Amino acid sequence: MLKLFYAPGTCALASNIALEEAGAEYEAVRLDFGAGDQRKPEYLKINPKGRVPALITDSGILTETPAILAYIAQVFPKANLAPLNDPFAFARAQAFNSYLCSTAHVNHAHLMRGTRWADDPASIEDMKRKVPKNVGDSFALMESEMVEGPWVMGKSYTICDPYLFTLAGWLVRDGVDIARFPKIHDQHKRMTERPAVKKVLAAWA
Amino acid sequence: MLKLFYAPGTCALASNIALEEAGAEYEAVRLDFGAGDQRKPEYLKINPKGRVPALITDSGILTETPAILAYIAQVFPKANLAPLNDPFAFARAQAFNSYLCSTAHVNHAHLMRGTRWADDPASIEDMKRKVPKNVGDSFALMESEMVEGPWVMGKSYTICDPYLFTLAGWLVRDGVDIARFPKIHDQHKRMTERPAVKKVLAAWA
Repeated sequence: MLKLFYAPGTCALASNIALEEAGAEYEAVRLDFGAGDQRKPEYLKINPKGRVPALITDSGILTETPAILAYIAQVFPKANLAPLNDPFAFARAQAFNSYLCSTAHVNHAHLMRGTRWADDPASIEDMKRKVPKNVGDSFALMESEMVEGPWVMGKSYTICDPYLFTLAGWLVRDGVDIARFPKIHDQHKRMTERPAVKKVLAAWA
Repeated sequence: MLKLFYAPGTCALASNIALEEAGAEYEAVRLDFGAGDQRKPEYLKINPKGRVPALITDSGILTETPAILAYIAQVFPKANLAPLNDPFAFARAQAFNSYLCSTAHVNHAHLMRGTRWADDPASIEDMKRKVPKNVGDSFALMESEMVEGPWVMGKSYTICDPYLFTLAGWLVRDGVDIARFPKIHDQHKRMTERPAVKKVLAAWA
């Protein structure tokens, strides 16, 4: 059986929602980042990066949200979570998820994880000040150039949707008003109405 | 025909090498970042992010290295650049490329692109000081936990190889000695001997 390691407030939410949408049988295992679970030897054996998500499969362990999302889409094709038979459309979905992990999430990470990239407390504060602009710019670009509506890729719900939903859920903390982005705002509201999303959010609460 | 937009010194190198390895017919179009080509209106129509790579295909435009690499593998299956028929193995390759774009490249980017995330010159210098440690840590983790050898995924050359080669090519500037990572160092040397790599490096010179 699949086993997903997650921690509240992290991007593992996207993979958990995707598993639920896929109708997968899985176990979700919660880590307590406050207690440093992600740095304990038993977890570092599962994911030496000390991060979540990590997905244990019968074939081995997977990490990295875009890879896990595409894997879920591929092994549960009936759930129709990605355009698996159209390499261009699949690449567009992957490009969106890649932008989320390499740019949008990184812009957000400078709010709470600045010590990854600098040491001086003044630098960390400087980074924090720039987060609302950077995260806002990322979302403005997604709104104008990437998100088709009503779902990210257009009329079909895909693995891009729970990932966007996850990062959009951080906007309040980032100091960015989601109402600036009408398509994303609308997608976010409809996401909260999906049974899979409700179930996962309740489990994470 | 495929058209790849690149600029010297950028991660577009990975996509260019993959096109060459695939035997694709393509045109490579060089941007001059020093002259601000990536911010000119005609290029922003192609890639509103103002970055490279961008790949024009008959179906539309693709961006983001991991997405472009997987696309090339899928549309040129005879080149055998990814384990397309094994979702777990494909996901492992994607996880590696995702780590490169979201963590290793981002660690490197704080050397020259610190102004993305902070404004004070002292913060930018602080970020630069941490780059050798952060990039070194990323490569140490890839060496010990991810790179199988002789190629990234093991005995088959995949889309992970040109991407690792690209970031490893920045190690000198990052202040990190590639010899610390024997498998990666060996892969790097063998990459430079491949005809596709020689051809692209000559074209970029």
